[in-house]
Amino acid sequence: MYPNWILQRAYLTPLRKALTFKKQSWTFQELSDESIKRARQLVTLGIQQGDRIAIMGPSKPELVIMMYACMHLQCEMVMLNRRLSQDELAYQLKDSEAVAVLIADEDVEKLPSETTYHLFSAIEEGAEGAVNIVKEWPLHQTTTIMYTSGTTGFPKGVRQTVGNHQASATASVLNIGLQAQDVWLCAVPLFHISGFSILVRSLLYGNQIFLYDQFDVEAIAQNIMDGDVTHMSVVAVTLERILHTLEQRNAKASSYFKLMLAGGGPVPVDYLARAHALNLAVAQTYGMTETSSQTATLASEDAMRKIGSAGKPLFFNQIMIAEPNAKGEGEICIRGPHVTPGYIGRFAQKNATKAGWLHTGDIGYVDEEGYLFVIDRRADLIISGGENIYPAEIENVLLTHPAVKEAGVCGMPDEQWGQVPIAFIVLNEQLSVEQLQAFCLQKLAKYKVPKEIIITDSLPRNGADKLLRRKLLQ
Amino acid sequence: MYPNWILQRAYLTPLRKALTFKKQSWTFQELSDESIKRARQLVTLGIQQGDRIAIMGPSKPELVIMMYACMHLQCEMVMLNRRLSQDELAYQLKDSEAVAVLIADEDVEKLPSETTYHLFSAIEEGAEGAVNIVKEWPLHQTTTIMYTSGTTGFPKGVRQTVGNHQASATASVLNIGLQAQDVWLCAVPLFHISGFSILVRSLLYGNQIFLYDQFDVEAIAQNIMDGDVTHMSVVAVTLERILHTLEQRNAKASSYFKLMLAGGGPVPVDYLARAHALNLAVAQTYGMTETSSQTATLASEDAMRKIGSAGKPLFFNQIMIAEPNAKGEGEICIRGPHVTPGYIGRFAQKNATKAGWLHTGDIGYVDEEGYLFVIDRRADLIISGGENIYPAEIENVLLTHPAVKEAGVCGMPDEQWGQVPIAFIVLNEQLSVEQLQAFCLQKLAKYKVPKEIIITDSLPRNGADKLLRRKLLQ
Repeated sequence: MYPNWILQRAYLTPLRKALTFKKQSWTFQELSDESIKRARQLVTLGIQQGDRIAIMGPSKPELVIMMYACMHLQCEMVMLNRRLSQDELAYQLKDSEAVAVLIADEDVEKLPSETTYHLFSAIEEGAEGAVNIVKEWPLHQTTTIMYTSGTTGFPKGVRQTVGNHQASATASVLNIGLQAQDVWLCAVPLFHISGFSILVRSLLYGNQIFLYDQFDVEAIAQNIMDGDVTHMSVVAVTLERILHTLEQRNAKASSYFKLMLAGGGPVPVDYLARAHALNLAVAQTYGMTETSSQTATLASEDAMRKIGSAGKPLFFNQIMIAEPNAKGEGEICIRGPHVTPGYIGRFAQKNATKAGWLHTGDIGYVDEEGYLFVIDRRADLIISGGENIYPAEIENVLLTHPAVKEAGVCGMPDEQWGQVPIAFIVLNEQLSVEQLQAFCLQKLAKYKVPKEIIITDSLPRNGADKLLRRKLLQ
Repeated sequence: MYPNWILQRAYLTPLRKALTFKKQSWTFQELSDESIKRARQLVTLGIQQGDRIAIMGPSKPELVIMMYACMHLQCEMVMLNRRLSQDELAYQLKDSEAVAVLIADEDVEKLPSETTYHLFSAIEEGAEGAVNIVKEWPLHQTTTIMYTSGTTGFPKGVRQTVGNHQASATASVLNIGLQAQDVWLCAVPLFHISGFSILVRSLLYGNQIFLYDQFDVEAIAQNIMDGDVTHMSVVAVTLERILHTLEQRNAKASSYFKLMLAGGGPVPVDYLARAHALNLAVAQTYGMTETSSQTATLASEDAMRKIGSAGKPLFFNQIMIAEPNAKGEGEICIRGPHVTPGYIGRFAQKNATKAGWLHTGDIGYVDEEGYLFVIDRRADLIISGGENIYPAEIENVLLTHPAVKEAGVCGMPDEQWGQVPIAFIVLNEQLSVEQLQAFCLQKLAKYKVPKEIIITDSLPRNGADKLLRRKLLQ
């Protein structure tokens, strides 16, 4: 049995700042008090200890307090993604069999029309019932359920337990270190593991969070320049926007800023070099919903020596490459206390692991010094004339061209070759397709050069700003 | 299953310094390589995976490597205390049923005469056998067995598992923080939990240890002044020697030095104030063999506001006061993943916990803000005329007198009162017993003033320099 994180943190460091949002701050004691009050309000709606509850709202303190209230009640929280369509949400509500839906007022229009729900405002104004907040949680208790698309088309509801989240946070601290004055900037969605894990770390570490409800790149860049924050989680595209803003301002990161954790897919090498020039330490990480955030992270001392690597596993984790080819490339498999015990709903009977190993479907290799390199997601693999083509490799080349702002590559069916790669790009400045193809031909084997390059205004991305290569063709 | 700490750390940060002893250093890779070699040498002696092995030697790299070799073989290590008598060692060897005794050459004379043993030097020169070093350890695997005297007279062999040590190290880092460049000075015995936990932290954190085989106060003070080290574990008497040395040199601690963890019983308030004047942060901690090191520690922000407190529990731990009296004082009980699953040998059937709580036998209270104050060890309680007298309270008063260097108080049988307190003191400068009693009378209720004060050269202490009050009368 482990302590209720919210009560324990409020007991240990009640007066430390826990959360700052638009210049208003909460201490750990205040967050605990408000979330206990909210739990008392939830029980009057008929919500009981251990119920499965769906929850949706923008990244604001109200959402944090609502989540903590659910955690006090040991509810399993189905974390609804605000960017989904009504059909996609309807699938998750049905599949999860959530007994209630808690929704921020401004998000109510996003719900499928026939949904029964409780508005945050109504809960916050409601009566308070009697509640026994348990002081201890078992390791196997499900804290969160997050849906991931996977390769089958039907999203799977992934369970993340108290033990998973604790293991992730403690393994992470052994890698990146900790000081009482550390402050995490959270501009990734709280409904994704990238954001929720920042809440868990805050509770376990006693660190403050600077919360953003949208990606305000000007304010974020200012925080980084001023040293208001020490850590931040980014994906490639948000990292690029920060780099661009700092470059435009001719400014560098404050020496108080410690680390960007970059996840959600590979970061182009070009970005890492630009970040280095701006005094911005970037640690590439590798993780996923099924591993409750990071599995591997590049240690600070290796950042420049192993550019492009996702590093080594965190202390309690293990990585194995299954069925490697002659070059050592194969499926990345993961083992450790941070790995999900399994799924709910339609996939409840599916084993998450084989012999204790999570088979990720991602392709990578471990170099002679033990560093993981994630080459690509298996589902994105393009096979053209028997040659394997990894989209990220082509994207990396396209992004080295100064006129290219964003790039996404996928396979297109082709009579002759089976598949051929095509590219979708967002431009910074005028450039012809012919010029760009000529540029690629200088850097890539001919069969890897995109047969078509489509100039567009934006690329399809999910709620965590991860590029969705499979949606490019649509 | 969790990774073998030694292999995992060598994999993650092979080139970081792991250990420094008398100007020679080892990296984590070197410690791993040497300990694997030593494991290969141990198997040729007939030692098998999982065997229970007794081990004794001074705090030198040879001992560290020998311990790591035993850990590679998943042996249960009975940590023999070098300061014990032959009779006491004979009891532990018999009680533990250790199948082999590994002994540093210089310690062989300490063993009971009929003991069969393997000298470190013979092992280090021996042949290497084939060995399969397992890469994973189960949480319930016993890593170490340490004997504690307790109140019954018969020492109990306490099991400390992989899970206990991991929980202790991870909970500790959430309290005191971590940076890659942290260096722990280890001048506490490796056979005690205070020293062994420094090894565990080094493996989990990737931090360097400055190892001392004796308490060389001049060299240690120099390390602290020069900022060679950032952390150190002390007990009251060693802390006093460091304070005294710094005061004599009119020097302060380097700003690189972060924290003294002070355990093994209460630290006199006077020492804390002197440390503060020397720029030396001291965190009082409360822990014991059964809790694999710290259970509670005073957070840095509370150090001056709650002088004398052992702080609050570490994040994964809980503390409860059983059967408190009207003032809230009662037996301190502890719960958490760091608590031993139990004992071996004569006490194998004894439950370490009741309903999940370890009853420590120590007396304390938790103040209105949740801070633990350890008043005294139950076995040392003096009852005089129906009044409870806590020796530490009298010692604290004696130590505030500038002429008093060390003080120990215990109960002496008395016809009239049942018991009366008497004091044993070590002086800095000339002082009469009458003067000191007059001094006490100013600060203490009359029944607490020691009826006898005996001036002596030294006080009885155990291997960890903890005052042994029960031996004072002998």
